[in-house]
Amino acid sequence: MSMISVVVHGLGNIGRHVIQALETAPDMQCLGLVRRAASLGTQRHDLRGLPDFADLDALIAARGKPDLAIVCGPSRNVPEDAARYLAAGLHTVDSFDIHDQVPGLVRELDLAARAGGRVAVTAAGWDPGTDSVLRALFEAMTPCGTTFTNFGRGRSMGHSVAARAVAGVADATSITIPMGGGRHSRLVYVLPEKGASQAAIRQALAEDPYFSQDPLDLRFVANREELAAVADNSHGVFMERIGASGLVSNQRLSFDMRIDNPALTAQVLVSCARAATRLAPGCYTLIDIPPVTMLPGERMGHIARLV
Amino acid sequence: MSMISVVVHGLGNIGRHVIQALETAPDMQCLGLVRRAASLGTQRHDLRGLPDFADLDALIAARGKPDLAIVCGPSRNVPEDAARYLAAGLHTVDSFDIHDQVPGLVRELDLAARAGGRVAVTAAGWDPGTDSVLRALFEAMTPCGTTFTNFGRGRSMGHSVAARAVAGVADATSITIPMGGGRHSRLVYVLPEKGASQAAIRQALAEDPYFSQDPLDLRFVANREELAAVADNSHGVFMERIGASGLVSNQRLSFDMRIDNPALTAQVLVSCARAATRLAPGCYTLIDIPPVTMLPGERMGHIARLV
Repeated sequence: MSMISVVVHGLGNIGRHVIQALETAPDMQCLGLVRRAASLGTQRHDLRGLPDFADLDALIAARGKPDLAIVCGPSRNVPEDAARYLAAGLHTVDSFDIHDQVPGLVRELDLAARAGGRVAVTAAGWDPGTDSVLRALFEAMTPCGTTFTNFGRGRSMGHSVAARAVAGVADATSITIPMGGGRHSRLVYVLPEKGASQAAIRQALAEDPYFSQDPLDLRFVANREELAAVADNSHGVFMERIGASGLVSNQRLSFDMRIDNPALTAQVLVSCARAATRLAPGCYTLIDIPPVTMLPGERMGHIARLV
Repeated sequence: MSMISVVVHGLGNIGRHVIQALETAPDMQCLGLVRRAASLGTQRHDLRGLPDFADLDALIAARGKPDLAIVCGPSRNVPEDAARYLAAGLHTVDSFDIHDQVPGLVRELDLAARAGGRVAVTAAGWDPGTDSVLRALFEAMTPCGTTFTNFGRGRSMGHSVAARAVAGVADATSITIPMGGGRHSRLVYVLPEKGASQAAIRQALAEDPYFSQDPLDLRFVANREELAAVADNSHGVFMERIGASGLVSNQRLSFDMRIDNPALTAQVLVSCARAATRLAPGCYTLIDIPPVTMLPGERMGHIARLV
């Protein structure tokens, strides 16, 4: 089996788990990390023996050119980071998660990928990502019907970031609680800045577009330790569809998942990295990818074993 | 939207539901049925206004050449039927369900399909079929772990046919009951032939390879009406995987489905018919197909809506 060589971009929550998932992949080899120059050499334990570099050129000079970059920075940086790796002649995979910006990013990365004869897989996490595959599959099975995607209970990165941006908030963690019917309430722990008005924070949060549509349970904490004590990585989703196949109703489909969030996201990134090396040039989301291309080894073996 | 024109081969339980599913598809048009000459013109109600023909040539003479054949005969006839339609220049879709013969059929149909620049989608039902997609997706999410596929409660066509083949059995229905851990028991209703020994039937059934591995609950009935009274189309599956993403265990995934069996199989056939018109020549199973190709309409719209 020829090894797929990978550079990991970023050593956050996802990047750390990507390194671990690459260790368990029989057909992948991590050449090293690219991260901010100021961070080089720190978090040695998380690096698990890998070298880190300030940019791709430095990594290439030391380790040779990788086939592929797994882009693990924040979503807002993904368009620029992925385009840069594509321009350098690498395939890319990212877990960009701003749902309504995915189509635009697909168009952008598709041009960049085709120009260099490379593959970009974007929005490759669990939602967007594997949940998207299930939503598509459920519609193929029951074209008429309704799907509810019920998230949680679990910590929402997007809502936590939004809460931290509210004036007077020093730090925050937002937990998503499913209410059924695809609706959710938000349990938000907030560490206020010294002297900030709790009433003002409460009002600003309640009016924020991230929170204004859902029931809000806001709790103030006294220090970062209290915040850390509720910020584990447990998450999940319950997706349910009731619909009709042809003219026959009462077809009932559901998917239930209880997971460590960054570990799953990282594993999906790594499985999609494998797929990227097997696809024609262009940009793909998970619903564009034949599932078998995400698995190591030979297609016919998987057909014999899984079909 | 240009219409995909389809011929349905066979008017059994699946063929009847395929006709209905085609009626609900916005981008498909059924030109008619091909079936045994002896049956022509019968079951007018099931034909729902469609003309039927003894062979493809007769259909083409009357209605023009279809893009695609949905092959709804028994699995044992699929290899020959699909190859014949491919040779005639049509794409084909079938729900061949003899698991251990799928790889061989894929190789066979792949040659036939490529020779004519056509697409064959095989094993396109729910197991093999959509369950296969879930098994593949679950492994991509948690490469290390165990999956159990628990079928039922529901009527098994394969086991019913096997029971009918036992000496002394006039007719039979076998119901699969899940016992957990991917194991099943068999509830078999048997109508004995006149004068047949119930003890001999019991022994032959218990020794049959279809039944010898599982707990057997055999019940004799007095007439076909009693048999018909337990032979509805309800079925289902509960698929569960516990595994690790990278180095992180306790990732828990499950899929639960409660359905009318032939209606779902027929709908998967129709959704795969759409995919067939969008794929490069060759033979595909469901794990080889990008999920988005099964849905009507434009890819970017689905990315905006589902991803």
